[in-house]
Amino acid sequence: MNKIHIDATRLWHSIMTTAEFGRTDKGGLNRTALTDSDKKVRDTLAEWSKEAGFEYGYDAVGNMFITLPGTQPELAPVMSGSHLDTTPTGGRFDGIFGVLAAFEALKTIKESGIKIKRSIQVVNWTNEEGSRFAPAMTGSGVYIGKLDITDVYGTKAADGAVFEKELERIGYKGAPVTGSPPHAYIEAHIEQGPVLESKDIPIGIVTGVQGQISLDVYVTGTESHSGSTPMDARSDALLASSKMVAAVNEKAVKKGNRAVATVGQLQVYPNVRNTVPGSVSFAVDIRVPDNKLLLNIESELADDFKEIAAGAGVTVSIVRLWHTPPVVFHKKCIEAVKNSAGELGYRSMELVSGAGHDACHISGMAPSGMIFIPCEKGISHNEAENAKPEDVAAGANVLLHSLLKLAE
Amino acid sequence: MNKIHIDATRLWHSIMTTAEFGRTDKGGLNRTALTDSDKKVRDTLAEWSKEAGFEYGYDAVGNMFITLPGTQPELAPVMSGSHLDTTPTGGRFDGIFGVLAAFEALKTIKESGIKIKRSIQVVNWTNEEGSRFAPAMTGSGVYIGKLDITDVYGTKAADGAVFEKELERIGYKGAPVTGSPPHAYIEAHIEQGPVLESKDIPIGIVTGVQGQISLDVYVTGTESHSGSTPMDARSDALLASSKMVAAVNEKAVKKGNRAVATVGQLQVYPNVRNTVPGSVSFAVDIRVPDNKLLLNIESELADDFKEIAAGAGVTVSIVRLWHTPPVVFHKKCIEAVKNSAGELGYRSMELVSGAGHDACHISGMAPSGMIFIPCEKGISHNEAENAKPEDVAAGANVLLHSLLKLAE
Repeated sequence: MNKIHIDATRLWHSIMTTAEFGRTDKGGLNRTALTDSDKKVRDTLAEWSKEAGFEYGYDAVGNMFITLPGTQPELAPVMSGSHLDTTPTGGRFDGIFGVLAAFEALKTIKESGIKIKRSIQVVNWTNEEGSRFAPAMTGSGVYIGKLDITDVYGTKAADGAVFEKELERIGYKGAPVTGSPPHAYIEAHIEQGPVLESKDIPIGIVTGVQGQISLDVYVTGTESHSGSTPMDARSDALLASSKMVAAVNEKAVKKGNRAVATVGQLQVYPNVRNTVPGSVSFAVDIRVPDNKLLLNIESELADDFKEIAAGAGVTVSIVRLWHTPPVVFHKKCIEAVKNSAGELGYRSMELVSGAGHDACHISGMAPSGMIFIPCEKGISHNEAENAKPEDVAAGANVLLHSLLKLAE
Repeated sequence: MNKIHIDATRLWHSIMTTAEFGRTDKGGLNRTALTDSDKKVRDTLAEWSKEAGFEYGYDAVGNMFITLPGTQPELAPVMSGSHLDTTPTGGRFDGIFGVLAAFEALKTIKESGIKIKRSIQVVNWTNEEGSRFAPAMTGSGVYIGKLDITDVYGTKAADGAVFEKELERIGYKGAPVTGSPPHAYIEAHIEQGPVLESKDIPIGIVTGVQGQISLDVYVTGTESHSGSTPMDARSDALLASSKMVAAVNEKAVKKGNRAVATVGQLQVYPNVRNTVPGSVSFAVDIRVPDNKLLLNIESELADDFKEIAAGAGVTVSIVRLWHTPPVVFHKKCIEAVKNSAGELGYRSMELVSGAGHDACHISGMAPSGMIFIPCEKGISHNEAENAKPEDVAAGANVLLHSLLKLAE
């Protein structure tokens, strides 16, 4: 067993340094993909990689790869990373921790002089968040061949920017995407939920990722004057939608089994103070570890929506945007994380991730796993997102030893 | 009793002519105050007034006055009108009918050669809708001295335009506002509600206007990740707000007595598909004919909101934007309308207006009244807004004879 540890101070400093790129007034980050601040953080990581003497490159979708060659560099590498982009009101750790913890592990191994059989490769996947360019997890999606790079190139942001032009502009349109399956993939990440913190456990051994269904719902009533339309003569699209929002919440609570369901986005039309709303659209996000229950919730919600619509004299239409079945991570990776945590003396527990990650994509082509660390109050996708230096260090140490085990 | 009638074809044609200014693809109107299309409709009315040989002028807030002098022009005139501006998705009749019906009545009287004792004055009040510049009913508000013209001049639109500059630009910054109280004021308008149509009655004798309270409500929870935040660890501002929207509706239904309450406007923050909403703001519009009940509903809703917020782990704050007590119109005007309808053989009924009108302002300085005509399905503030030619004619005839009675 290797007893080496990462340099906790150096890792923390690197995270805080990158947190200057896209920093918001509230101390969070607004660093959506392929913006100037995304370029700055990428350039900084590239510079650090060169300074440390690693092999460095990037591919045609902007995924960045930093490699420490093994003694048998012809073997598939062990890969580890996450993403450096954030949501428009994101925090300093979501994604970033996973990239910089892997980079710190790589430096630690190089400095220790330990010989590894397989190469270890750190990756920054392009546009994991999908906030500026849809869909999310673009870089890893192209890498595994699930997304077509021509389609991705043509994607437009709400600000009119085109993916390919922006990628060229920031200087990260590189070599053809190899799509080479790694030997194994491990991603470290903040939990983005409150479980680890509430149990005071620093390491989450992630056994899989919840399945997800994403819906767009359109409710159509009739615009009318809010002063002169009697209550019994209304077709109020917002009233009906409000009952649907409540139904989404109740359904997840009732079903239990770690099911969550959320309406995060809702638009009212015409959205005028003195007009009964004529139409409303909203997004429903359902996530469940079990695929059968996931589909069951979708179907029951569709029935609930129709019933509510009929009762309110409005119509409803539901569009399923995507369905991602649950992911179960590989035993080999789960064991590597569990054993590393145990050997280092960290308390740990098994968890199912509620959020999607690039690891979901990579798990389709190679054995994959994840390590979670606690974040303050479970808050993420929020400028107040926070993590403790000691948890960051613990996660990076578990990652370091997991990578060493998998590269042996 | 005068047996004269307005020219129904000419009136209908004048309405359809003005409906070309600001016409939308859906056949409605987007003619918010002091825009180019507002200028066009004003210029057209001014031209028609000059062609017909009326006295014509406009004041410093852009209110337009068209006068047929009486035999005793030193007496306060009888005034009638409404507004030519619309909401961004408005219809062809809201406001316009009242101005053009009064103008048609004026032409009819002039052409008939009937001598009237008091002058009759047609008015187009500036910015009744308040869609581009707040508050609503600006022109009549300045006229009665309730609004300060300097404040109004400084008002900014969402597009950055300043009221005074726009008024100058379209050429309607005129003579100082006189604020002279008329002898009486009658405003004809579409009902903007379904009552007259459902009872197949062409004339509504408006006895008053509902009192109104307008609130802004701010709900604050905690942004968190929609995948990884368990249902019992959420402070979901949209879920709480949805329950408040339902409570607003239920309260009005339960209280009855023609109470209406509406949430027409709602914003979610950050409004992202995969984030539990951290904050929501929404507008509540409450209208009741009885002031005590109006205040009672406001106070009970505040209690409901606090209870819902406490149960959902969020906070709520409520800001009252305005409170307009109910208006009771003057017996003299109500009688003039009722008797005119009866003499002309039109069926009529008494109504309380749910919407606010310039007549509410003028009723504070002079005896006032209103005439309603049906509109299709009660729909207004909507591009589909519609009225029947025969109802338009009936309303204008009742207005004509009401004005003659009041000018005697």
